Amino acid sequence: MFFHKKELQYLSKPDRPDPVFARQLQEVLGGQFGEISVAMQYLFQGWNVRGNGKYKDLLMDTGTEELAHIEMLATMIARLLEGAPVGDLEKAAQDPVIGAILGGMNVQHTIVSGLGAMPVDSMGNKWNAGYIAASGNLLADFRANLNAESQGRLQVVRLYESTNDRGVKDMLSWLIARDTMHQNQWIAAIKELEAKENVVVPSTFPKELEKQEVSYVLFNFSEGEKSATGRWASGTSMDGLGTFQYVQQPEAYGGKPNLNPAPFYIHNTLP
Amino acid sequence: MFFHKKELQYLSKPDRPDPVFARQLQEVLGGQFGEISVAMQYLFQGWNVRGNGKYKDLLMDTGTEELAHIEMLATMIARLLEGAPVGDLEKAAQDPVIGAILGGMNVQHTIVSGLGAMPVDSMGNKWNAGYIAASGNLLADFRANLNAESQGRLQVVRLYESTNDRGVKDMLSWLIARDTMHQNQWIAAIKELEAKENVVVPSTFPKELEKQEVSYVLFNFSEGEKSATGRWASGTSMDGLGTFQYVQQPEAYGGKPNLNPAPFYIHNTLP
Amino acid sequence: MFFHKKELQYLSKPDRPDPVFARQLQEVLGGQFGEISVAMQYLFQGWNVRGNGKYKDLLMDTGTEELAHIEMLATMIARLLEGAPVGDLEKAAQDPVIGAILGGMNVQHTIVSGLGAMPVDSMGNKWNAGYIAASGNLLADFRANLNAESQGRLQVVRLYESTNDRGVKDMLSWLIARDTMHQNQWIAAIKELEAKENVVVPSTFPKELEKQEVSYVLFNFSEGEKSATGRWASGTSMDGLGTFQYVQQPEAYGGKPNLNPAPFYIHNTLP
Amino acid sequence: MFFHKKELQYLSKPDRPDPVFARQLQEVLGGQFGEISVAMQYLFQGWNVRGNGKYKDLLMDTGTEELAHIEMLATMIARLLEGAPVGDLEKAAQDPVIGAILGGMNVQHTIVSGLGAMPVDSMGNKWNAGYIAASGNLLADFRANLNAESQGRLQVVRLYESTNDRGVKDMLSWLIARDTMHQNQWIAAIKELEAKENVVVPSTFPKELEKQEVSYVLFNFSEGEKSATGRWASGTSMDGLGTFQYVQQPEAYGGKPNLNPAPFYIHNTLP
Amino acid sequence: MFFHKKELQYLSKPDRPDPVFARQLQEVLGGQFGEISVAMQYLFQGWNVRGNGKYKDLLMDTGTEELAHIEMLATMIARLLEGAPVGDLEKAAQDPVIGAILGGMNVQHTIVSGLGAMPVDSMGNKWNAGYIAASGNLLADFRANLNAESQGRLQVVRLYESTNDRGVKDMLSWLIARDTMHQNQWIAAIKELEAKENVVVPSTFPKELEKQEVSYVLFNFSEGEKSATGRWASGTSMDGLGTFQYVQQPEAYGGKPNLNPAPFYIHNTLP
Amino acid sequence: MFFHKKELQYLSKPDRPDPVFARQLQEVLGGQFGEISVAMQYLFQGWNVRGNGKYKDLLMDTGTEELAHIEMLATMIARLLEGAPVGDLEKAAQDPVIGAILGGMNVQHTIVSGLGAMPVDSMGNKWNAGYIAASGNLLADFRANLNAESQGRLQVVRLYESTNDRGVKDMLSWLIARDTMHQNQWIAAIKELEAKENVVVPSTFPKELEKQEVSYVLFNFSEGEKSATGRWASGTSMDGLGTFQYVQQPEAYGGKPNLNPAPFYIHNTLP
Ligand SMILES: [Ca+2]
Ligand SMILES: [Ca+2]
Ligand SMILES: [Ca+2]
Ligand SMILES: [Ca+2]
Ligand SMILES: [Ca+2]
Ligand SMILES: [Ca+2]
Repeated sequence: MFFHKKELQYLSKPDRPDPVFARQLQEVLGGQFGEISVAMQYLFQGWNVRGNGKYKDLLMDTGTEELAHIEMLATMIARLLEGAPVGDLEKAAQDPVIGAILGGMNVQHTIVSGLGAMPVDSMGNKWNAGYIAASGNLLADFRANLNAESQGRLQVVRLYESTNDRGVKDMLSWLIARDTMHQNQWIAAIKELEAKENVVVPSTFPKELEKQEVSYVLFNFSEGEKSATGRWASGTSMDGLGTFQYVQQPEAYGGKPNLNPAPFYIHNTLP
Repeated sequence: MFFHKKELQYLSKPDRPDPVFARQLQEVLGGQFGEISVAMQYLFQGWNVRGNGKYKDLLMDTGTEELAHIEMLATMIARLLEGAPVGDLEKAAQDPVIGAILGGMNVQHTIVSGLGAMPVDSMGNKWNAGYIAASGNLLADFRANLNAESQGRLQVVRLYESTNDRGVKDMLSWLIARDTMHQNQWIAAIKELEAKENVVVPSTFPKELEKQEVSYVLFNFSEGEKSATGRWASGTSMDGLGTFQYVQQPEAYGGKPNLNPAPFYIHNTLP
Repeated sequence: MFFHKKELQYLSKPDRPDPVFARQLQEVLGGQFGEISVAMQYLFQGWNVRGNGKYKDLLMDTGTEELAHIEMLATMIARLLEGAPVGDLEKAAQDPVIGAILGGMNVQHTIVSGLGAMPVDSMGNKWNAGYIAASGNLLADFRANLNAESQGRLQVVRLYESTNDRGVKDMLSWLIARDTMHQNQWIAAIKELEAKENVVVPSTFPKELEKQEVSYVLFNFSEGEKSATGRWASGTSMDGLGTFQYVQQPEAYGGKPNLNPAPFYIHNTLP
Repeated sequence: MFFHKKELQYLSKPDRPDPVFARQLQEVLGGQFGEISVAMQYLFQGWNVRGNGKYKDLLMDTGTEELAHIEMLATMIARLLEGAPVGDLEKAAQDPVIGAILGGMNVQHTIVSGLGAMPVDSMGNKWNAGYIAASGNLLADFRANLNAESQGRLQVVRLYESTNDRGVKDMLSWLIARDTMHQNQWIAAIKELEAKENVVVPSTFPKELEKQEVSYVLFNFSEGEKSATGRWASGTSMDGLGTFQYVQQPEAYGGKPNLNPAPFYIHNTLP
Repeated sequence: MFFHKKELQYLSKPDRPDPVFARQLQEVLGGQFGEISVAMQYLFQGWNVRGNGKYKDLLMDTGTEELAHIEMLATMIARLLEGAPVGDLEKAAQDPVIGAILGGMNVQHTIVSGLGAMPVDSMGNKWNAGYIAASGNLLADFRANLNAESQGRLQVVRLYESTNDRGVKDMLSWLIARDTMHQNQWIAAIKELEAKENVVVPSTFPKELEKQEVSYVLFNFSEGEKSATGRWASGTSMDGLGTFQYVQQPEAYGGKPNLNPAPFYIHNTLP
Repeated sequence: MFFHKKELQYLSKPDRPDPVFARQLQEVLGGQFGEISVAMQYLFQGWNVRGNGKYKDLLMDTGTEELAHIEMLATMIARLLEGAPVGDLEKAAQDPVIGAILGGMNVQHTIVSGLGAMPVDSMGNKWNAGYIAASGNLLADFRANLNAESQGRLQVVRLYESTNDRGVKDMLSWLIARDTMHQNQWIAAIKELEAKENVVVPSTFPKELEKQEVSYVLFNFSEGEKSATGRWASGTSMDGLGTFQYVQQPEAYGGKPNLNPAPFYIHNTLP
């Protein structure tokens, strides 16, 4: 069950409106690695944890915080949109700033949301649940989380570089710091699980059932052998259970496939 | 530039047709973490590498191999679909096996693809590029790759548990082994970059510009303090640059937001 | 800012597992009018309210409750999935119950989410933000809300009719009651705004700027005149500002359009 | 069965081309609440009506008219696109008007549709059927229709405010008037059904089967009690069957959920 | 402008309900090559024709007919759904026919549409406008149309093979015949345009501006030379302007790409 | 199985960066008829061919070449993005070129991909598998291929007209030439299959089972009889098996549909 407090987790006030930047900021609200994605990802992972331990609590703590970040960004975007002009080519031709705004803003911010934030990314793509992962295997999922926080912090940093507005920069510096924490925390949780289970997910599948002769082999499918010089091409494997090998000329083990004809009632091309 | 050889990388022949399993197998061909996703993810990452070093080669080696895995799965699915029956309720009522097939199979395998594989997942969702990540920051992207290989191997293992067909199990044991390698290789590459750059992505953003007072803080937003017992709540942070803290009762730093009214021409509700 | 409590708003425990019903129940979790939709719709409307009055509080109260409903449904679905069998055609052929389950369940509940709930509908479509509305005009948006609660309650009632599980029915009776309240509350809010603004959205657009001669006309575009007998075809209009008229044979006022040829550099078919 | 007449329902001719406005106008053609949405929504509702009465006729009358509105907008957009320039940065740098157009227009209007309208919204999102509702329950569906006409008229009004082109404004004033009628007609139909069935959808579900103790309760899940002052928090409920109550501190009735471990073959994290 | 007549273009009445087949039939209503796709494709092509000649009339004639086909299929599906049972695992376990129905039907036909047709395909994917083409170049578009009618007729034929219901088969035999006509008509229109413009689209691009040395070359990128035996590998090209050639070992003309480093503010991995 | 060579098939180097054009060029990389579409379409068609003849080889030859075209475009886009500026309204106001870039570019090229190409179209829509066709019937599929190459070449030509950059134009002239070949080759393959099977797909469905009285009839559903003057309205049909007829006033053969009421448990509006 959730409770809401009207106060924001952190300040979210720009120095001045900027509808062009409002559209860019949508990326970290409603984009693939935006706050909606991490909120939904952590909450679904948390709800699906079987057992009530510290991982569930950590997921719910963090997922609930991400809801606060959606709220901060929604507020910031609404403020950046204040007084956004409307207009057509005539106005754009007269005033280059209006022209730049009409081109650079998300026009749905005027037509559809009435100067409010939307659950979309910076190109106007609607948020969809194909962005998130919750598999029931926590080592897999914490890697999804670490990835999301890495991509997300990278995007916030790029946005920080794109604006001179001190209010916006102040809020972004908060989000960047929280992503620092979240990367740190998922790394800590990953290390703990890796120490317990070894590094390959899922750790519960019997080694002897996989085709072990290719479990530690790098196949050179792209001409050039620079990849042979990496740590992944020789020495003990990262899971400590094998030895990396490099195969310069990969062979085909599967033969040429020859499919049987389809039954007549399918009306495929006859052979 | 690419070249194709008709031979498959590995055997892809089931003992007998099984349209119900064919539909399930689509998950690892055209699902969120299926072979199309990793192929496209590695190739786009590879094409976007700025510099021609070992990472680019590794990405192109692996992305090109994933194309071979798409091909193996497409072939296996086409064979599992051989002789798939068609029919309506009348047939289903007479023969429970036909009933089970009509329910359990992807009916587009008959109506649309003519007993061929499709770029869709096990529920028939079309593959879409919102599944993949290629950011230009390799540490972020290798984490995306490790996640994809973890989720992917987990799914293949679950499919392995779901069938008794020895031919299918043989092919899956190959894919499981390759995912073992791919998890190992991305871990190796990640460790190398982390050693060079430290663990927080992006490493190039100046520490002093983030709100450092919350960079290592776990906020307890979900009642219950089990998460306070984890490694992420105390001790030196994983990046070695701070100390984890636990805040039992998180405060609001942002005040209540109060948005200005919209201009009249927006026709929002008047305040 | 949000806080989470581990306790559920209401009981969410089935008498026994039922993966087929779990898939059906996804509709009201992650479907077009499911709990994710209303949560996101109310929260975005709330965040975008310009002014901090009772409507904003009502939206935040209700949006926050919907998060608890997502949680109840996610928990129920996870429990309905307990012990879901895996299997292929061979098993389905031997045991009609397994056949029915493999056909009737969402197979991603096994392969992808590991027996957890997903942000998808009953056919496996990913939730997407194209389902929600938040326009900044509260009368418009409360109508969206009333529609969502009407469609949603209808779906929950249909699910109630589809199961004999007393635990499931008990939880659904809670959700049905809450939807009764939510329909009532949005009707109350709508009536208040309609009394203040009149019924046509947006009320702020000057009457004389619309083509008033067709503002209260029903055009008979589908042969047959049964619709002429309705309240909408004669008498004073619902906004009290006009008189309904019925036009039996609608005319064309716009002439035949004749588009100019495209410039050569577009390479369209030459006229 | 349908018949088409080449004449447009109303004039659709701009004073001059304006590719920037053409892109904005796409919102009400192919957006969430555009003409394609209402046409498809009314027609599917009409086809699914069981009984051939006045509601079916009304739905088919109106759905068929909406096809004419798609046509008017498609024609207007094609005319606004006439002579749209093509170009790259070099041209944009030389001529700010070309820069504004390249930014503000939908570039697919040149590259893909050859200066023709497209079934997309103002941000280029493809129209999809997740926008529409047709449930078989007409009170629910007429609320969907009233919402669609409210959101739609609001958007057309905002577009009217955004242009100075008299030809465009003339056509928009027609569409605004028709939306006035459509809001009026759905209100009339809703009132009739509400009078017959009471206001809660579906009216056929037995009252005693819902958890009646929470059927008229407003839970204060967002701190602050402004919502307690509304009509929805006290007095007789809108359906006349209960009394609104306000609960200042909502309790959790559901206990902490504790999910059983997954079977081994799922390979989730072991508890 | 459009007019609707309540009569169907052709009979649409099954011998008996069959919710499993109803779901399959959705493919040709709301799938990639279903009736919604062809209706929208022809109408948008028609509206975008610049010039009012016979092609525009043909497109509007045919697009308008396709609306009637949507209606026939919607009616058939509603009838096939009559009396569709609802139920959970308990019922499915008791009665294999109910089990088959629950697996084989689209459960949204019960929960969402109330036994009505939906704008979705046989796997429940929502129809979207990414399925259609309207480019302004009629030779290109008529090829899209011929493809759509070919894929569509193939699917209807496969559905015809899947049922024993004489009412359904009767209606499908109508649709198959109409697709025979539509394939014939687009072939006739294509031949006319090809005779006028030659066969390569667009015909208006100056030959000397393309890299003519590879305009008629088949590159052997897939090992094995069976494709060298086809008409496309030798002899005069189909446009009569060149000679087909076969290149057994394709060369790379483009060198190894070497991308410059990104600016620092992008925070990519440093080279 | 596939192999990759670092060299590009053809040069892919612009004279200078141009982020606005980079966004436009995405259309033919990741749009509906871009290189990803044709690569995936040909490869899936090839993998699903039942029989190992020349058509399979041709599909695999061409599908593999299309992978090289994706690579060329990805490289070109990455180069066009070099040095793309970031910025907000303040910068846009100061410098019209920056304003034009911020409006005209895909802002995800900065925020998300770090100056790399993406699998999206020119409006930022993610590539999805709903764009492609692979039916198992090669005549149908080769028509899909001819359409894709026609729409694709048209789009590349329009892009060629939109830029003055000689490096870009040089690469586009390569792609245009290859599309010339691909249109020619699919025409050759189509003619061969048509000669063998006749022109209507599928050719294997018995003529007497379709409703032959309407197999060659053009119904005049759109007022005006210009379409009656075309080749498709009189004379021998293109398949040589019938005679085209024109019906000036199409009749309705299906009567008015009258659907039975839904069962009570569906809770539709009662009749
Ligand atoms: Ca290599
Ligand atoms: Ca906690
Ligand atoms: Ca009528
Ligand atoms: Ca409150
Ligand atoms: Ca070959
Ligand atoms: Ca006509």
